[in-house]
Amino acid sequence: MEADTALVRKLVDTLPEGVVVTGAAEIEKYREDFARDGSAGMPVAVVRAEDAGQVQEAVRWAAAHGVPVVPRGAGTGLSGGSSAVDGGITISLDRMRSIEIDPACQVAVVEPGALNADVKRAAAEHGLWYPPDPSSYEICSIGGNLATNAGGLCCVKYGVTTDYVLGMDVVLADGTLVRLGGKQIKDVAGLSLLKLFVGSEGTLGIITRAILRLIPAQRAGATLVASFPTMTAASRAVVAIRTRVRPSMLELMDNTTINAVEDWRSHGLDRSSGALLIAQSDATGASCGAEIELVRACCAAEGAADVFTTTDAEEADLFVSARRNAFLALEERGSVLFEDVGVPVPLLPDLVDGIAGIAGRCGVEIALVAHAGDGNTHPIVVYDAADPAAVEGARRAFDDVMQLAIALGGTITGEHGVGRAKKAALPDQLGADVMALNRRIKDALDPAGILNPGAVL
Amino acid sequence: MEADTALVRKLVDTLPEGVVVTGAAEIEKYREDFARDGSAGMPVAVVRAEDAGQVQEAVRWAAAHGVPVVPRGAGTGLSGGSSAVDGGITISLDRMRSIEIDPACQVAVVEPGALNADVKRAAAEHGLWYPPDPSSYEICSIGGNLATNAGGLCCVKYGVTTDYVLGMDVVLADGTLVRLGGKQIKDVAGLSLLKLFVGSEGTLGIITRAILRLIPAQRAGATLVASFPTMTAASRAVVAIRTRVRPSMLELMDNTTINAVEDWRSHGLDRSSGALLIAQSDATGASCGAEIELVRACCAAEGAADVFTTTDAEEADLFVSARRNAFLALEERGSVLFEDVGVPVPLLPDLVDGIAGIAGRCGVEIALVAHAGDGNTHPIVVYDAADPAAVEGARRAFDDVMQLAIALGGTITGEHGVGRAKKAALPDQLGADVMALNRRIKDALDPAGILNPGAVL
Repeated sequence: MEADTALVRKLVDTLPEGVVVTGAAEIEKYREDFARDGSAGMPVAVVRAEDAGQVQEAVRWAAAHGVPVVPRGAGTGLSGGSSAVDGGITISLDRMRSIEIDPACQVAVVEPGALNADVKRAAAEHGLWYPPDPSSYEICSIGGNLATNAGGLCCVKYGVTTDYVLGMDVVLADGTLVRLGGKQIKDVAGLSLLKLFVGSEGTLGIITRAILRLIPAQRAGATLVASFPTMTAASRAVVAIRTRVRPSMLELMDNTTINAVEDWRSHGLDRSSGALLIAQSDATGASCGAEIELVRACCAAEGAADVFTTTDAEEADLFVSARRNAFLALEERGSVLFEDVGVPVPLLPDLVDGIAGIAGRCGVEIALVAHAGDGNTHPIVVYDAADPAAVEGARRAFDDVMQLAIALGGTITGEHGVGRAKKAALPDQLGADVMALNRRIKDALDPAGILNPGAVL
Repeated sequence: MEADTALVRKLVDTLPEGVVVTGAAEIEKYREDFARDGSAGMPVAVVRAEDAGQVQEAVRWAAAHGVPVVPRGAGTGLSGGSSAVDGGITISLDRMRSIEIDPACQVAVVEPGALNADVKRAAAEHGLWYPPDPSSYEICSIGGNLATNAGGLCCVKYGVTTDYVLGMDVVLADGTLVRLGGKQIKDVAGLSLLKLFVGSEGTLGIITRAILRLIPAQRAGATLVASFPTMTAASRAVVAIRTRVRPSMLELMDNTTINAVEDWRSHGLDRSSGALLIAQSDATGASCGAEIELVRACCAAEGAADVFTTTDAEEADLFVSARRNAFLALEERGSVLFEDVGVPVPLLPDLVDGIAGIAGRCGVEIALVAHAGDGNTHPIVVYDAADPAAVEGARRAFDDVMQLAIALGGTITGEHGVGRAKKAALPDQLGADVMALNRRIKDALDPAGILNPGAVL
């Protein structure tokens, strides 16, 4: 149901001045996420909540009147998971940013609007580290990370968001706030509700606080950068590396991405390289060198043209930031569709080859960057939105890449979430029975279907 | 509803000969788990399934006739989670033990009846390791580990069962088999159903296959054993260690446990020690020695009487096996009630002191062993079942310890599960709203309530 003017007035009056935004220009900033997938509707209001109580108030109002609610963090999502809904409200958590480090418990107690980078910085002041590190970590929020179970570059050794969640406050579809878990590390009392809310993309509840586990900060270690003639050769090296070493980073960039990054800002990358592999080891002592040597041997065996290693953190950061900036750089080349497909690691070369085939068949450019050590790739379809044939080819390529991943026994999304952009392909991956199971959980927790309607399911 | 003879006959005829057991003597072996909590009823049959299809057949039969179903692994549970139900059936997974290692993907594909130790051994043949290691790992099954989200000794550094689950086949309450996840490492397509089934103690479905992540085998490293005058001092040392080091093991045993273990089989422990701390580091190179030195310093600062270190694996195993054998040894002293309470690590000394107070007030002996580095303790109430006053005191102590953990912001169960033994205290920990949320999920997945009724909720 669409909220009418009188109803919206009621919401405005319920909450403190300035919390509810109804001006068109202001609302516009909260309509889309970075996927810019064109699915965003026009909400009647944006609630810029200052605390959990205001989130509860807004949800109670929405529940009473059957108004759709879209929760939103920093808006850096890549699947349209926080695209606004016509006639609904968007609850933005961007003002709820508090971060409290408890060094004795080695946890961070954070509000959802806190940026990932700010949590990392606050933890670092106590010699601690919050590992999950999406490429967008400087601008993405913890709430969004939790909603998508975000990954990143260090996940190949240190795991993803869900591995670091000890506790959570969640506002349910009727406005009830539940407190799950706590600062205790192990807790199996009752069902694993905590883990269910992680990755639920705002469809089951709105996270208003999280207790995140921290670990001692790791030293930077050594970095290896290898240049390969082809992505196939580089991905074969990744498969070999993964069976012999446990690197703390194992990333790939293809030639298109290398050149896009260099066009955008020079990082000193070799523009003629077919593929660049970036590996790090944070093992201590002689183990670090030994790991890097194993990586080097795997690269050499798969025909690496050039291998460079460094233990200088600044030098290493140049390569890592090149990788992190890939999305921004590629967006300069045209309109983009972000993929996030993953396969079992040994099938990485098949995925890489299949994607090249799809690019050829659909007549589009697909740049490829990958958290390769996890088998998780980001093929990025770059196209000219003004050319209808290119748009059609891009859409086809986007779908075909997901079908390829499914055919290889993989997933349509490793870390970005399904959102709205990948919803159509979800049943193809999960099948009817698992879709029905998802739906049963959704119906149990949000029977009226007001939470993020149109996303995921 | 209780199944009558004709109905049971139908079940027997549906499945291959020998799968359905109805003889009283044979059934008796499947009635209780290690908690022996006296709650076990008399089932009409035990289904010793050979494959997932037979599990489906049995569940379909039970669903059609409203018969309760209790799933069961190796029966080593400590909370009565697989206690049989009057008039129901128990589905034992103890014949489904296949283990297949995929070294390229670094996963184990296992059936639920496979023992934890067998998975470890199979992985080790490929230089790989399945970390979760309950003390009972030689006799407990992976199915039970998954059902309780089991922990163990290495969890302080390597996490618990849920951290290693990539895929799962689950038979739902209507007999449908769903396949969740796969061999891909990262996958956020749809809700985190996989994680929801982990730790659900057979109340949501029956796990018939799991894909478990393996990591490269770690070297043994160094072991430190420190003797303290009191458990309070030892637990203070644990708190200090945890803020400075990330050990791969950090365990405590109190004087009662030390003497019980020595009575049972000599391990060369100092019977006069008030508390024994066992720490390990599997860091490589000089870091290993540095970590052990930090542990030593923390122990010294908290008044350790004696500190011993070794890099000899066999010597270390003597201490670790003493710790692992604590439950078996304590069972020799009388009847036992197993606790599994946990608190945020800095509150460990408060928990230890509180437990000593409860033992005094209730006039019972409470031995204490702990996965101390995780704040997870196992107070074990030892009592004489023939003495009504002792039984009463033991029950009271059991309840009081759980209430103490809740009061300290902790949990009634860190890794054993709620089962039937801890069910009464669950609402005190979770509160009405979270209990209702648990119930909603349960009702959505098992509307007729046939799966493990009486457990957890």
